[in-house]
Amino acid sequence: MSSCLGTLFRVSTFGESHGGGVGVVVDGCPPRLPLSEADIQVDLDRRRPGQSDIVTPRKEADVCRILSGVFEGVTLGTPIAVLVGNTDARPEAYSEMETTFRPSHADYTYEAKYSVRNWQGGGRSSARETIGRVAAAAIAKKALTRLCPGLEIVAYVRSIHQLEAHIDDPAAVRFADVESNPVRCPDPETAAEMVTLIKAVRARGDSVGGIIECVVRGVPAGLGEPVFDRLEADLAKGMLSLPATKGFEIGSGFSSSRMTGSEHNDAFEMHEGRVRTATNRSGGVQGGISNGENLVFRVAFKPTATIAQAQKTVTADGQETELAARGRHDPCVLPRAVPMVEAMAALVLVDHALRQRALR
Amino acid sequence: MSSCLGTLFRVSTFGESHGGGVGVVVDGCPPRLPLSEADIQVDLDRRRPGQSDIVTPRKEADVCRILSGVFEGVTLGTPIAVLVGNTDARPEAYSEMETTFRPSHADYTYEAKYSVRNWQGGGRSSARETIGRVAAAAIAKKALTRLCPGLEIVAYVRSIHQLEAHIDDPAAVRFADVESNPVRCPDPETAAEMVTLIKAVRARGDSVGGIIECVVRGVPAGLGEPVFDRLEADLAKGMLSLPATKGFEIGSGFSSSRMTGSEHNDAFEMHEGRVRTATNRSGGVQGGISNGENLVFRVAFKPTATIAQAQKTVTADGQETELAARGRHDPCVLPRAVPMVEAMAALVLVDHALRQRALR
Amino acid sequence: MSSCLGTLFRVSTFGESHGGGVGVVVDGCPPRLPLSEADIQVDLDRRRPGQSDIVTPRKEADVCRILSGVFEGVTLGTPIAVLVGNTDARPEAYSEMETTFRPSHADYTYEAKYSVRNWQGGGRSSARETIGRVAAAAIAKKALTRLCPGLEIVAYVRSIHQLEAHIDDPAAVRFADVESNPVRCPDPETAAEMVTLIKAVRARGDSVGGIIECVVRGVPAGLGEPVFDRLEADLAKGMLSLPATKGFEIGSGFSSSRMTGSEHNDAFEMHEGRVRTATNRSGGVQGGISNGENLVFRVAFKPTATIAQAQKTVTADGQETELAARGRHDPCVLPRAVPMVEAMAALVLVDHALRQRALR
Amino acid sequence: MSSCLGTLFRVSTFGESHGGGVGVVVDGCPPRLPLSEADIQVDLDRRRPGQSDIVTPRKEADVCRILSGVFEGVTLGTPIAVLVGNTDARPEAYSEMETTFRPSHADYTYEAKYSVRNWQGGGRSSARETIGRVAAAAIAKKALTRLCPGLEIVAYVRSIHQLEAHIDDPAAVRFADVESNPVRCPDPETAAEMVTLIKAVRARGDSVGGIIECVVRGVPAGLGEPVFDRLEADLAKGMLSLPATKGFEIGSGFSSSRMTGSEHNDAFEMHEGRVRTATNRSGGVQGGISNGENLVFRVAFKPTATIAQAQKTVTADGQETELAARGRHDPCVLPRAVPMVEAMAALVLVDHALRQRALR
Repeated sequence: MSSCLGTLFRVSTFGESHGGGVGVVVDGCPPRLPLSEADIQVDLDRRRPGQSDIVTPRKEADVCRILSGVFEGVTLGTPIAVLVGNTDARPEAYSEMETTFRPSHADYTYEAKYSVRNWQGGGRSSARETIGRVAAAAIAKKALTRLCPGLEIVAYVRSIHQLEAHIDDPAAVRFADVESNPVRCPDPETAAEMVTLIKAVRARGDSVGGIIECVVRGVPAGLGEPVFDRLEADLAKGMLSLPATKGFEIGSGFSSSRMTGSEHNDAFEMHEGRVRTATNRSGGVQGGISNGENLVFRVAFKPTATIAQAQKTVTADGQETELAARGRHDPCVLPRAVPMVEAMAALVLVDHALRQRALR
Repeated sequence: MSSCLGTLFRVSTFGESHGGGVGVVVDGCPPRLPLSEADIQVDLDRRRPGQSDIVTPRKEADVCRILSGVFEGVTLGTPIAVLVGNTDARPEAYSEMETTFRPSHADYTYEAKYSVRNWQGGGRSSARETIGRVAAAAIAKKALTRLCPGLEIVAYVRSIHQLEAHIDDPAAVRFADVESNPVRCPDPETAAEMVTLIKAVRARGDSVGGIIECVVRGVPAGLGEPVFDRLEADLAKGMLSLPATKGFEIGSGFSSSRMTGSEHNDAFEMHEGRVRTATNRSGGVQGGISNGENLVFRVAFKPTATIAQAQKTVTADGQETELAARGRHDPCVLPRAVPMVEAMAALVLVDHALRQRALR
Repeated sequence: MSSCLGTLFRVSTFGESHGGGVGVVVDGCPPRLPLSEADIQVDLDRRRPGQSDIVTPRKEADVCRILSGVFEGVTLGTPIAVLVGNTDARPEAYSEMETTFRPSHADYTYEAKYSVRNWQGGGRSSARETIGRVAAAAIAKKALTRLCPGLEIVAYVRSIHQLEAHIDDPAAVRFADVESNPVRCPDPETAAEMVTLIKAVRARGDSVGGIIECVVRGVPAGLGEPVFDRLEADLAKGMLSLPATKGFEIGSGFSSSRMTGSEHNDAFEMHEGRVRTATNRSGGVQGGISNGENLVFRVAFKPTATIAQAQKTVTADGQETELAARGRHDPCVLPRAVPMVEAMAALVLVDHALRQRALR
Repeated sequence: MSSCLGTLFRVSTFGESHGGGVGVVVDGCPPRLPLSEADIQVDLDRRRPGQSDIVTPRKEADVCRILSGVFEGVTLGTPIAVLVGNTDARPEAYSEMETTFRPSHADYTYEAKYSVRNWQGGGRSSARETIGRVAAAAIAKKALTRLCPGLEIVAYVRSIHQLEAHIDDPAAVRFADVESNPVRCPDPETAAEMVTLIKAVRARGDSVGGIIECVVRGVPAGLGEPVFDRLEADLAKGMLSLPATKGFEIGSGFSSSRMTGSEHNDAFEMHEGRVRTATNRSGGVQGGISNGENLVFRVAFKPTATIAQAQKTVTADGQETELAARGRHDPCVLPRAVPMVEAMAALVLVDHALRQRALR
């Protein structure tokens, strides 16, 4: 149940970090969209390990295969299954995890919930699980091209630890700026400092967190639904479902709590015949529904839980012990999390775009 | 669709601020739970207007009636319908809203989505809609008493504008402390300052935002599910579905982004035969599943959009104009939002508790 | 959960036969449809007790009230709640039901499932529950008028006990013919015999079953979805969810089991530029999807379980006993079940019509 | 969306008859159930082509591979993905299908719905799609072993064309009797006649239909839910979702329509301290909920649409033509449909068993 998402564009992911593979079934994708494995691979390559010297050196190629739902280069309207095999598994690197709970990981909670777990590499709780999401989102973006022409999702690293990027206007950030450096921060000077920081942190066996900001341009007014399925509520759920996330805010976010209404409200004005807002503290949503302005939201990521320093913990049979990670891991998840944030945004938006089409 | 929530404990709310009434149908509530209208009324009274001199002076009594699903004082297992009539409607107070979009309200987005709206008092986008949620949550809390004995949900105002409560330990905050003052802030000195601030803000026709913190004690380990239905993801969705919310964070939240892994990780230790964490930066969840520690999360509320000061806006036919609110409204939503936050927490938890019971 | 139906046009019914009332919340209805209580009442009147001398003489007026979702005569797109109060309750007529299980009723199974039940008049298992469905379907039919112009649903009594109506062509049956007699059988001669039979059966304290046939004209090709949500699968579920149903068949139905492929297949031919079938053994669906021909299906209803003759049964505490019904009841449910069959057809069709609109 | 089924035991199937393969993702399976590929293969072998001389001679081995959700021989509680590759594809055998609609097949309706289709072998509408269902059901049966010990599902061929098996008591039919002959009819004499009939029908390029009966023993009282998710409603949906089905009836079924209440009602009696019914015309369900008696239901299958005789049809560009099938096909689907009927019964029952566990 819990690996399914969406009302009309229905995504079901599967797979552990070690085992036959990971993947996704997308049910409800509109027919007649051009789709190839290359369309999906480009996004998988942005999230895969080993892509730069500041991420985990694991070597998975993460090559995807479309098993169904596509014929002669276009979607059929039937379920699209995508599979990525597991290749660079070294379960021996995780042998302690069989008996010892890694601090701030899901080992203990999976054990508490299921009384069984695939302890190799975190199993289902591994970030490798997000491959299915990114693959599904690549398909979602194809659908959005038709449903919402001109819609564009761009996420980027806003801050890492104390280093905050200088970004005057989220609306002006371009994909090429984001992809110009391995951190995926569109401010090149701060990006360079971030690289240095990440390497230093890794050198001392530690890790760092940060904030990813996402802007979505070209969203038509009217997406999102009243009450529970507000656009920001579904975005919040999507983002907090990503590994290592601890917070979500949209528009003015937490800073709105320190403002007055007269400071915060977005005045309406006419602009080229359209209703627009003079400011965008709402972050593109009002009453749960998009107002045609840019969606702007931020997601907080904690520092990677896996660190090489020794930490106090307990074993599955209740003995106190110490643990220092030996597996290969990311000292900072944010560079690889940028495509994950975009992916969750795409999955939420495509579902609401389809729902809105049914309603009109 | 969008007014339905939950997989097993299924809530369907209905109602506009003006019209026949507001309410909820709860499907999937376990049978044989004692339930009366008084059980529901106590929570409705905590969210109703007119309860103190810092909230809107509207006079709705918000008296609920159980229409079905209860027999001889206990739940039947069949759908429980709860209805609250609308009484103190003064549609004339909202006459401008027929033609003019209130800034940072949902008037424009509802129009963009539906091309029709009940402009009286905000219609479905009115916070009056939350009556159905609070009623459903009163039922959910009855179910939680049986499903998770000892579980307790306490929310309170953490800050209003620049005023932040002094709370050393969220785990120690008691319901009686929260209810001891009209702001629902368990720090009485700051609460008094908050009352003064809210009255001053109202006097000048303005409004303020703030932050509500919620702690849930006695959560069994194992609630929440991997991938999309993580406990924190469903809490984030629940909270961001409340009117006027702009952000959610759990445990260390946004501050985690400025920490290292060695600072942030919660070491495991044995405590009276149970696996516990030495600290609780995780906020009670790891890998989307409760670990038995307290859930601690915060929700950011923007300042009330309705203010008496004149603001620039546009009319439904595209003319620029000015608008100053005349309707009765809250200068600060937080005191009345405390039971709403608790309500959404209860609805998320009861659903996950039922799902976990099925799984074991 | 189990009182909710639909993916996009979401229906949640509630209510017991005795208690505050019965009703429904419809979420996902398109906006700007004209809708009044009179639109709903006309269908409720067709299912209500006391409408003729061959149905139960109970006197409920079943007057409906729209509580939400409609403003100035049109739907808002928000949830539409409809309530019908319970008035002619005589719980004393059901006093034996507190302790004794009526044969072939749901008393025992509700007790087995919930360990509690509203024993007055059957509670949730009463056919009175179908009021919510009929009200929802009246709204669905309004939506279908816009989504599928020309679509028309006509159900009628095909047989009662051994009496079978002479109907050469289901496609030719008109609503006025159906409503011309209290049995709702479009063959007036057989209808008269059916009236005589029903009165005779009632006189000897017994009951009879029968078959309702339903034809839907003007269904566009393309409704229904592959695999689980086939149009005939959802129709089958809808029909078997009605009280007293024991079977469903579409097109050739069970008789197809005695045919060869060369006899059964519907040849395609061109007709006024459209692909049509020469025959309609498929009943309007092929591969789960409508083909533009009439939907034709039949539903088997068992004889009313409540009879005045004494029957062997057991008490809640396990004593064998006899029971003879004293409550007022229908000697044959079919005349009042005709609008229920139409209702379920409308609810299934509107949901698929909305889903198809999203997909294109 | 439409390839997903279940509330708690959630099944998502995928795959076309020609392409990468077919399979299923099962989400919500309880943890710690022993499960191997061999457990699944045994049921796949019962549905696969080429298993006897009365079914299609296609040669697919249909070997399954578990990709996720199982670790060290037991289920993890995480999604279980099962994949079966496509091997014996001969798309050239279907070349006419690219341009010509096969009568009583889904070619035309898929075209009408999606404006695109995988014309090779029927694509998603091929019965090959049921591999995913059968694989999921093998997992469901493992879960049922724990949830409902003693529950047993046995389906068998009741009739083919005019030949009806002599079965005095469905409760006495054993799996070994069913599997003792290639028709899967537990009456060996009639089974032999059926084999002769099927071969004769095939020899003249035709096909035949029939009826499958299914009995489920050991169902605990209390499964199924009031109103829409009645056990018989969900069974009806499950069965009508199978290819080539035209009808469903439970217990007395359509014959109930010709009975009186005094003939039809199942008297309650005490039997070894349990409430039992003297007869089982209800077919094991009353008010939508199991009463502890055997479930007994029947499913009507039409004759295979694919026949070697020439038939009138039209082309995709609207020309009338003739078509005679060249692909390999079953002259009678029933022998291979027996495990499909069992599969749908298992999927419906496991979901209701889990739902009931949550409720108690």
